[in-house]
Amino acid sequence: MKKVIVLFSGGMDSTTLLWLCKKEFQEVYALSFDYGQRHKVELKYAIELAQIAGVKEHILVEVPHYRLIKGSALLEGGPEVPKGEYTQDVPPTNVPMRNLVFLAIASSFADSLGAEYIAIGVHALDTPYPDCRTEFITAMESAINAGSAYVAKTKRRVHVYAPFLGMSKVDIAKLGKELGVPFEKTYSCYMGTEPPCGVCATCIQRQEALKAIGYV
Amino acid sequence: MKKVIVLFSGGMDSTTLLWLCKKEFQEVYALSFDYGQRHKVELKYAIELAQIAGVKEHILVEVPHYRLIKGSALLEGGPEVPKGEYTQDVPPTNVPMRNLVFLAIASSFADSLGAEYIAIGVHALDTPYPDCRTEFITAMESAINAGSAYVAKTKRRVHVYAPFLGMSKVDIAKLGKELGVPFEKTYSCYMGTEPPCGVCATCIQRQEALKAIGYV
Repeated sequence: MKKVIVLFSGGMDSTTLLWLCKKEFQEVYALSFDYGQRHKVELKYAIELAQIAGVKEHILVEVPHYRLIKGSALLEGGPEVPKGEYTQDVPPTNVPMRNLVFLAIASSFADSLGAEYIAIGVHALDTPYPDCRTEFITAMESAINAGSAYVAKTKRRVHVYAPFLGMSKVDIAKLGKELGVPFEKTYSCYMGTEPPCGVCATCIQRQEALKAIGYV
Repeated sequence: MKKVIVLFSGGMDSTTLLWLCKKEFQEVYALSFDYGQRHKVELKYAIELAQIAGVKEHILVEVPHYRLIKGSALLEGGPEVPKGEYTQDVPPTNVPMRNLVFLAIASSFADSLGAEYIAIGVHALDTPYPDCRTEFITAMESAINAGSAYVAKTKRRVHVYAPFLGMSKVDIAKLGKELGVPFEKTYSCYMGTEPPCGVCATCIQRQEALKAIGYV
């Protein structure tokens, strides 16, 4: 039984990933996080989408320690989310080691469920975030395999599946369209407003991608 | 300013590590976790010891997702903690990916505080646990460096400091004695009873080590 745990925010990338995994794996778990994000409203969308996808289980996890960490524009109480694209090397919306923490938590579920795949929707536009780069994904996969009791017992391997590495947002939108992703039910805004603000970097990238494929 | 974040449970190993780090670093943060462990009482000891050590800050973090994971004897609601030493390859007290999760959370604090060292008290007797082995610590250090915004900005390196790798419990006890660790204030029992049960593997290892150095 090929099992996968999908890091799932309810945004257009991870929703496309979830639809892709539904096609490629027999047992699909969605894993979403409440980590004090400004746009916590995304979880409402994630819950509905996971139901539509018909996942085996949608696991919702609290990650409280980020409430103690200040300085990220993506966290409640942090500086403002900038309008438009970012100009700094590391974006102000970086949440320190977010994907390391998310993949670590995913790996504890993987270990206990015997899932050999953990899927993450990082893509080419995410590369300003260090924990979205190929080097990080590769290193993290090694750490997971080295630390896993499942691997120690079975001598098998756990894979961090990141099929969108190197893909643009337009590529993802195209794939999502082919897979029948209901993009109108996804939520990507970093401001957390309803309707989405339309001016944060994520809103802009999303609109451009959906426009390019003729979805909006 | 040489800063370190010490994974700190209040047991004899991590307390010795904390005392060692107080000597070797200028700014010491202790980081303790409430993860649904059966022996949550250890946190009470950790709080007192961190005060005695005079750390810059004792950070207490909840890690709720382990409450959703069943099967570890170390977690509340899990199977019983066995008496005596273990015979299986991976001990029943293994908590899936615990050190991966703990180091990941530590690395988010390290990133935000600009701490270049994360200290962990894994030692030779811990090697049945995959996430206590040298290979894991090395791989995890690579993952942290690859994912760190601090490293991306400063081009410096973050170190996972594990000075007890390869050291026995007796070696640690000797070092702790030299450093003036108040062992009587530490707590190591996996059963979580007060006084400690005296029959779990950790109690036995602790008693043997303290006896060997003439502490009890």
